[in-house]
Amino acid sequence: MIATGTGEDARLRLRTPASVDIFTRILTHGPIGRIDVGRQTGLSQAAVTKTVAPLLLDGIVAVDRPLAGAAPAGAAPGRPVHPLRVVPSARLVLGVKVNPDEVIGVATGMTADILHVLRRPLGSTSPAAVIEAVAGVAEELGVLLGERAARLIGVGVAVSGDVDAATGIVRDSPLLGWRGVPLAHPLATRLGVPVRVDNDVRALTIAEHWFGVGRDSGSFAVVTIGSGIGCGLYLNDDVVSGAHGVAGELGHLPLASLDAICVCGRRGCVEAVASSGAVLRAVRAATDAPLLTLAEAAGLAREGVPGAMAAFDRAGTAIGAALAIVANLTGPDTVLVAGEGMQEFELYERTIRRTFAAHAFGAAADCLLVTRAHTFEDWARGAAASVIRAAVRQEF
Amino acid sequence: MIATGTGEDARLRLRTPASVDIFTRILTHGPIGRIDVGRQTGLSQAAVTKTVAPLLLDGIVAVDRPLAGAAPAGAAPGRPVHPLRVVPSARLVLGVKVNPDEVIGVATGMTADILHVLRRPLGSTSPAAVIEAVAGVAEELGVLLGERAARLIGVGVAVSGDVDAATGIVRDSPLLGWRGVPLAHPLATRLGVPVRVDNDVRALTIAEHWFGVGRDSGSFAVVTIGSGIGCGLYLNDDVVSGAHGVAGELGHLPLASLDAICVCGRRGCVEAVASSGAVLRAVRAATDAPLLTLAEAAGLAREGVPGAMAAFDRAGTAIGAALAIVANLTGPDTVLVAGEGMQEFELYERTIRRTFAAHAFGAAADCLLVTRAHTFEDWARGAAASVIRAAVRQEF
Ligand SMILES: [Zn+2]
Ligand SMILES: [Zn+2]
Repeated sequence: MIATGTGEDARLRLRTPASVDIFTRILTHGPIGRIDVGRQTGLSQAAVTKTVAPLLLDGIVAVDRPLAGAAPAGAAPGRPVHPLRVVPSARLVLGVKVNPDEVIGVATGMTADILHVLRRPLGSTSPAAVIEAVAGVAEELGVLLGERAARLIGVGVAVSGDVDAATGIVRDSPLLGWRGVPLAHPLATRLGVPVRVDNDVRALTIAEHWFGVGRDSGSFAVVTIGSGIGCGLYLNDDVVSGAHGVAGELGHLPLASLDAICVCGRRGCVEAVASSGAVLRAVRAATDAPLLTLAEAAGLAREGVPGAMAAFDRAGTAIGAALAIVANLTGPDTVLVAGEGMQEFELYERTIRRTFAAHAFGAAADCLLVTRAHTFEDWARGAAASVIRAAVRQEF
Repeated sequence: MIATGTGEDARLRLRTPASVDIFTRILTHGPIGRIDVGRQTGLSQAAVTKTVAPLLLDGIVAVDRPLAGAAPAGAAPGRPVHPLRVVPSARLVLGVKVNPDEVIGVATGMTADILHVLRRPLGSTSPAAVIEAVAGVAEELGVLLGERAARLIGVGVAVSGDVDAATGIVRDSPLLGWRGVPLAHPLATRLGVPVRVDNDVRALTIAEHWFGVGRDSGSFAVVTIGSGIGCGLYLNDDVVSGAHGVAGELGHLPLASLDAICVCGRRGCVEAVASSGAVLRAVRAATDAPLLTLAEAAGLAREGVPGAMAAFDRAGTAIGAALAIVANLTGPDTVLVAGEGMQEFELYERTIRRTFAAHAFGAAADCLLVTRAHTFEDWARGAAASVIRAAVRQEF
């Protein structure tokens, strides 16, 4: 149980679709003047003022000091602009990422700004052990928040695989060995706060769309490289979730040799040659060094050892083809390649970009490839962003 | 010039976003009662009545005779339901598909119901020759429509490749050998009616979403198989258009052997082994019969000639993998496989379905694969649907 104090309701109340739009705009683009909010949402100034009034009273939105510089076009000359912004600490959320070997939790404010981070090792991936660890981390974060825990709107949990966010059930997670595991309900009962479970890559995509590189992008993709390879798509103003809960499974596109067998059991998956585990296994086999670490394998590739170079090359070729497929099929303006294994990224970045360029079709090649290392905390922050978005959209 | 008679404005006027929603619902789901329109659009009964009044006056919407059977839930008992429907003939559109060797035109009503079909061979794919042929077909259709031409809201033209519908410029069409060809403007000047140019697969996707298999589908894909291989995606309530105008380029995903060189110049594209031309070339080479037709090649495969069977098999494998990629990446609930070459479809359907099943990931495999032969008229009808949608959305 998280001690949320007085039991006062921290729920975010936005009563109309227009107020959801207005609040979202202020949250993701604040500080922002009322005129710009109206212009960008297509709503009247009167609607903006009417929506904002109770939010100012609530304290979740504040008026900043007048902006320095010129007034925006359309503002009365000489009249100072009092921009609106969301007060990050007015509501808090927790985000927890479940990995096979550990659980990582963050406490954040409304802009997914990280306040605290906690990690806890996992001895087993059994549902009971994971629930215990997630609840433990959430409770500890609750203790760290102290009185502020009264402002908690919920806990997000990010899990890899096929997750039904609506019911909070993990339908299929090969990495955890789970099928049909209810996660949100037992956690909510145990913690006494609402819990939202989401696919980890979808959660990360929400975080990047609302608070990251996708903030001004209408169509973008997040590709994650590491122990698994995933992809979050944001198209036509929303995350692509898949009619049956599956989408963005870039790691399981059949782009590698059919000799390569994937952890999912299929043949020829991208992950079967390009996950960090697959690269490590290939370097170990090629160099006959079964105890090599990934860092050592990368070292051998940097020294020019052919078997090691070939393994990274094969991974880069599969990832580059996968990126071209994302571009040719969905045409995003930006693709963020975010990797845990970004220390090794220089080893195959050239191959990735070359393969991408060879297969990107026409103007699809114009999409911006942004590469960025990311940390385990980013995944937990994604879980928090998923809660923030659900709360704003009144799904929570 | 198309003689549109009195010069009266046939434009469809829907003054608010709500009225666009209401009209769209009646158009795609009529005959439908006012209560259901309200429920399905989330708008009040009053809003529905207010929106529908001028449309009834205009004649574009009509009240049907009372529905037989029980009144829907929520209706006053005993009160008959007078469902609303769009009057197809109240407005007309023309749709023209440009192929390398001919131009096909249709005249349709508001529900993309075909009234007339015309075909005209193309001696050259030069922009001047194509403009001449499209204009000629449109003018002839105008003559066939007679007085009804006064109700024309526009002409749609469907072209394969990268098309900028907003400017009416064909940016890149390898099939026609065009780059940066303005098409909408010269045609509109010549014909005296508004012209919309769209990518052919995107146009077909609109037709299937509004008037076909995608009518009740939130996320679906149309895959076209024939001389080219394309894909239209409908996700998050809209067609995926691509930030740079390119999306759905399924034919140019790198899923075939890198030995196979595509008409686009790239290596390993799906089209390089799976277009009808590629299959034919492979059967000809394997059987040493350079003058074989596609029907004869299919005959050889049916007789069990190994080289012919292998060519169809290779095509089926590439198409099946491409369908799995669409499913794994975007998770549609329905994929319509529409082919000009559907007479030959039985030759590789089993391979397609087997390869799809081998690579579809988790619940992505649950998507419905619908196969259907389609005709050249369907492409032209797509162009008409693109105009209808643009007119309804007040983009026209
Ligand atoms: Zn796999
Ligand atoms: Zn190609």
